[in-house]
Amino acid sequence: MAQQYQAKIHVTLRPSVLDPAGVAVRSGLEKLGYGGVEGVRIGKYIELTLTAEDLETARAQVDSMCDRLLANPTIENYHIDIA
Amino acid sequence: MAQQYQAKIHVTLRPSVLDPAGVAVRSGLEKLGYGGVEGVRIGKYIELTLTAEDLETARAQVDSMCDRLLANPTIENYHIDIA
Repeated sequence: MAQQYQAKIHVTLRPSVLDPAGVAVRSGLEKLGYGGVEGVRIGKYIELTLTAEDLETARAQVDSMCDRLLANPTIENYHIDIA
Repeated sequence: MAQQYQAKIHVTLRPSVLDPAGVAVRSGLEKLGYGGVEGVRIGKYIELTLTAEDLETARAQVDSMCDRLLANPTIENYHIDIA
């Protein structure tokens, strides 16, 4: 029987890809007085609910969604947690 | 002695706030053939490294950064993990 699953997806830029937004945030933090901040990287955090036959099918579906729409695999990595 | 801490921050829209980007992604997924997807919410995931005297100070600093720059507390919640 089909069940509902909750997926939590982290989409992050690959380490080799520059993150201009992260650089801007680091600079903004410094101007606000927060020194000693480094390596600011900004990614996406997506939550969704889906209906699938079982956990394995749900994971495969979300994996496919990430490859096709939620992430850009050329420059981004993604990590999926499903429960 | 000052130490480096790694902070992982989730910034999410408060449940009562509409998420137009999430609605658009849900619609996009449906057009790609992924039915049965609901409750798409899109937040930010921020990683940064900071130098602080101890874990408590680090957490207080990141909390303050979230309130002042990283999140908009009027419409967003944030969750901080530090190690």
